[in-house]
Formats: sequence, C-alpha cells, structure tokens
Amino acid sequence: MRVIGIDPGLRRTGWGVVDVAAGGIAHVANGVCLSEGADLAERLCSLHVQLTAVLARHRPEAAAVEQTFVNKDAAGTLKLGQARAIALLVPAQAGLRVAEYAPNAVKKTVVGVGHADKAQVAHMVKLQLAGVELAGPDAADALAIALCHAHHARFAGRMQAALDGARA
Amino acid sequence: MRVIGIDPGLRRTGWGVVDVAAGGIAHVANGVCLSEGADLAERLCSLHVQLTAVLARHRPEAAAVEQTFVNKDAAGTLKLGQARAIALLVPAQAGLRVAEYAPNAVKKTVVGVGHADKAQVAHMVKLQLAGVELAGPDAADALAIALCHAHHARFAGRMQAALDGARA
Repeated sequence: MRVIGIDPGLRRTGWGVVDVAAGGIAHVANGVCLSEGADLAERLCSLHVQLTAVLARHRPEAAAVEQTFVNKDAAGTLKLGQARAIALLVPAQAGLRVAEYAPNAVKKTVVGVGHADKAQVAHMVKLQLAGVELAGPDAADALAIALCHAHHARFAGRMQAALDGARA
Repeated sequence: MRVIGIDPGLRRTGWGVVDVAAGGIAHVANGVCLSEGADLAERLCSLHVQLTAVLARHRPEAAAVEQTFVNKDAAGTLKLGQARAIALLVPAQAGLRVAEYAPNAVKKTVVGVGHADKAQVAHMVKLQLAGVELAGPDAADALAIALCHAHHARFAGRMQAALDGARA
C-alpha cells in the first residue's frame, strides 16, 4: 500500500510518500509545496494545483493528514484550517480515504514520545527510511504522518490476520 | 457584471448571484449547498463539487465571500475556516478575483447598520431584489454579500468615471 502524509500550512505544505509492504516500509518521495499568490484565494488555488500534481505523479492509495492543534491564536488556527481543507480535499477528490492523526499520536508512533521536537522527528524519519533525503522540516513531518499511518495499517493488518487465524 | 456571493458553512453553504448594470442590480439565482459525507474530507469534497456546478451554471465574473469572524470557539472557527477555504478556492479556480468583506461591512452596506439580525438582512435583500424567492437564511446572507460587492463595485465605477471626467 502506498501512503501519502501531508503536513498543511498556508505558506509551506510538506508531503511525503512511502510504500508499505509485509517486509517493511520504503521511502518513495517527499517535498514541499510553496503556496503563492497575491491573496488567500490564489494561495489556496496554488496549493490545490501543486498537491493535485503530487498525487497524480505518485498515485498513493491512502492519505493521512495531521489534525490541527487548536491553540489560543484563533487567527492562526483559522489560517491553518484553510490550508488543511485543501490537504483534505485533494486526496478525497482522488477517491482516497483520508485518515487524521493528532500531532502527539504521530510523534508517539514515530519517535516513541508525544512531545518530540522537529529535529528528533527528522532523525527518526531518517532512521526508519534508509537513504531518504529530506526536502526540509515540513517534508520530514509529512513523512512522519505517512509512517504513523503505515504503522497503524500494518498493525491493523496483523490483528486481522491473527483474528482470521483464530477463527480458522 | 455578474457577482456571486458565498456564505460558507461546514454543513450549509449559501450562495446568491446578482447582475449589476448601470440601471440597477437584478437577482439571478440563489441556493444552498448541503455538504454530505462520512468525514470532513468527504464533506469538503461534496461542497467543492456543488459550488463548482453553481459557478459552471451561472458563470459569475466576480466573487465575494464573508470574512470569518474569529471568536472564542476555536474549534468552531477552525471548522468554518475549512469550509471557507473551499468557498475561496472554487471561484479562484474559475479565474475570478475573490473579494472579502467583514460581516459588519456587509450588514452596514445592505441594511444600514452593522449589527442587523438575519431576519432584517433577509428583509432588505427582498426589498433590493424585486421578486426574489430565498432558498433560506444562508442564501439570503449570500445574496447580501453579493449586493455588498455590487454596491462597492458600482461606487468604484462612479468614482472612476468622475475622476476620468475631472481629468478630461
């Protein structure tokens, strides 16, 4: 199964694609979309075009997006929500199910603790995806989200196999 | 000039289209998109499909969307921001400029005061658009946003004509 993880932001949106097989998880590609435009509508349109192109190029079968952390900066939350809408929309338009994970769940799965900093996340992503070249911290976060979904999917698969075995 | 006003919401998004000419402003159509789907990504996708169809049918040349009121309910602000992103994206994808107006500016332009309630807005929309049948309060709000943009555009046009006259 090929998974894309997306870390949305109004200026920079990270993305990362991994392949999940019985043998392990392999890196496919990662990058950052820079949203350009004179106003918000144009920037959202620019992000939509770029993310659509990423999905067309790498053809993932599942998508995962980080849940937005609602903080005290309401204006910042609103801006992030607008970028996040595009990150949810594009895979849904491609017919993919979009899983959502809380930031702490992503860090706990990939780093082992819920409050890891960006450098730790990038380090663990590199450890788990041999030979990966990161396009930046946003791309590292996006690969962490993809890894989180991959681990959850593999675990769900093993659980199902065990249940099927118990029933047989 | 044909203007679409959009009042975004995660469940119900109102829209209204008016024609602006030297003689006055005429109603074209109004309605409500209901966002359907099991999760947020599907609902955003459903809204995108419906709004795209509205633009394809009525072919507006300009769009206006209400600015989101950032309130204390951060989770609600986030949800609204996600619907709003689609309301900004769809006209931008059609190559339209998207104007944004604060809710108070819309009410002040259409009703004359900044703190009008929904019934007052609907009443003034009906007064200004003879024979209009409103698809509901969200559609009335959307027509108010379109009217606000129409009035601003006509005023800007008259200003430009006066300036051109003064220069001539």
